[in-house]
Amino acid sequence: MDQLSLQNPVFATYVIAATLMILKAVSMSWLTVARMLQEKGGFRSPEDLRKTPLNPAPDPQQLERNERVERIRRIHLNDLENLPFFLASGFLYVLTGPSLLLARWLLYGYVVSRLLHFGAYATARTHDTRATLWTVGSLIIIFMTCRTLLAALGH
Amino acid sequence: MDQLSLQNPVFATYVIAATLMILKAVSMSWLTVARMLQEKGGFRSPEDLRKTPLNPAPDPQQLERNERVERIRRIHLNDLENLPFFLASGFLYVLTGPSLLLARWLLYGYVVSRLLHFGAYATARTHDTRATLWTVGSLIIIFMTCRTLLAALGH
Amino acid sequence: MDQLSLQNPVFATYVIAATLMILKAVSMSWLTVARMLQEKGGFRSPEDLRKTPLNPAPDPQQLERNERVERIRRIHLNDLENLPFFLASGFLYVLTGPSLLLARWLLYGYVVSRLLHFGAYATARTHDTRATLWTVGSLIIIFMTCRTLLAALGH
Repeated sequence: MDQLSLQNPVFATYVIAATLMILKAVSMSWLTVARMLQEKGGFRSPEDLRKTPLNPAPDPQQLERNERVERIRRIHLNDLENLPFFLASGFLYVLTGPSLLLARWLLYGYVVSRLLHFGAYATARTHDTRATLWTVGSLIIIFMTCRTLLAALGH
Repeated sequence: MDQLSLQNPVFATYVIAATLMILKAVSMSWLTVARMLQEKGGFRSPEDLRKTPLNPAPDPQQLERNERVERIRRIHLNDLENLPFFLASGFLYVLTGPSLLLARWLLYGYVVSRLLHFGAYATARTHDTRATLWTVGSLIIIFMTCRTLLAALGH
Repeated sequence: MDQLSLQNPVFATYVIAATLMILKAVSMSWLTVARMLQEKGGFRSPEDLRKTPLNPAPDPQQLERNERVERIRRIHLNDLENLPFFLASGFLYVLTGPSLLLARWLLYGYVVSRLLHFGAYATARTHDTRATLWTVGSLIIIFMTCRTLLAALGH
């Protein structure tokens, strides 16, 4: 059986986790747009102050820092710091042929940790909650990456 | 035939689109460097004010925010928010065995949308133009990712 | 022999380089956390000023820009601008079947250039040193990507 076939349940698990995380990351862009429209501000480019159908009443204050928009941008940046490495790490880990049970715990566990992290960050929960959820995801990446590295060095 | 062989025209399409997008992202770093040299400013690190062959006449103003450099940095950040997810999404989508015609429209369509987005952003076109071009690319990623997710859930 | 098997020494080389770079990127997050704890500052979210076990004596100054924390954040951003594209570029390059010797020089050369870049940036070496090391890595990505693009166009 081809390792990169959806017939391979470990690979299918990876594909489900990876596509959910891609959709999560892309949603952050849309959420930033939604917040900017809601707040009518938090823009970044001088040309965004031109009068257009999407911005019928421009105002120089629209270029000022808006904390509600910045919060989504910080969550987005946190995704950029984590998700591309999860996608690569999980893919290479799957190629080392882990057990289905362990792969499911790690890959779906990562997805759950990131969704909870989003919830905690978006609702401004205490730092320690957010940090704990981020740590779970980061340790999953580190574990998968180290296992893959050891498998490659063993050959 | 191996799915990940360049003999597979769908995979070859992906490789062309993906390598063009990687070159695009890497070019943004070089463009930032070129702009900083042109503007003799827009630097970020205190040590960049030391006198060196690349900076023969240092000046504290060089650490100030320079809008022409910041514009390239914003375009670059937009690439970081989009391209890694396009690379992953397109790769997994190709493994689901789409038709060549559809794959070409989606993958080359994405490349074209991003090059136009760059043109609109670099020349400070009105927000609505830039937003429309970004939306096309984002919807292509979402479509490919959802199709891949459904294929994986169907197994 | 399967191209994506660790039995393939070119792929094993890629996996070693890729996992080291993933661990490098993830370490930057942990280093940012370590620096923030050391400096008791450099935080970004208003809620980080709440009294918690990790922040027993909150102070509004903790939200101010802290150069020692910002340095790690700049290194991290530089990783985000480079490593995801190295991971994708190297992977596709390996699929074009390069010689083991060349693959080792390029992939391990990239790893070495990034570790030296980190050392130069973290210790605030002169800009020209940092720029030279970054250039080596960037040229390796460009070389691998162009070779892969040409191989795909040749089919």
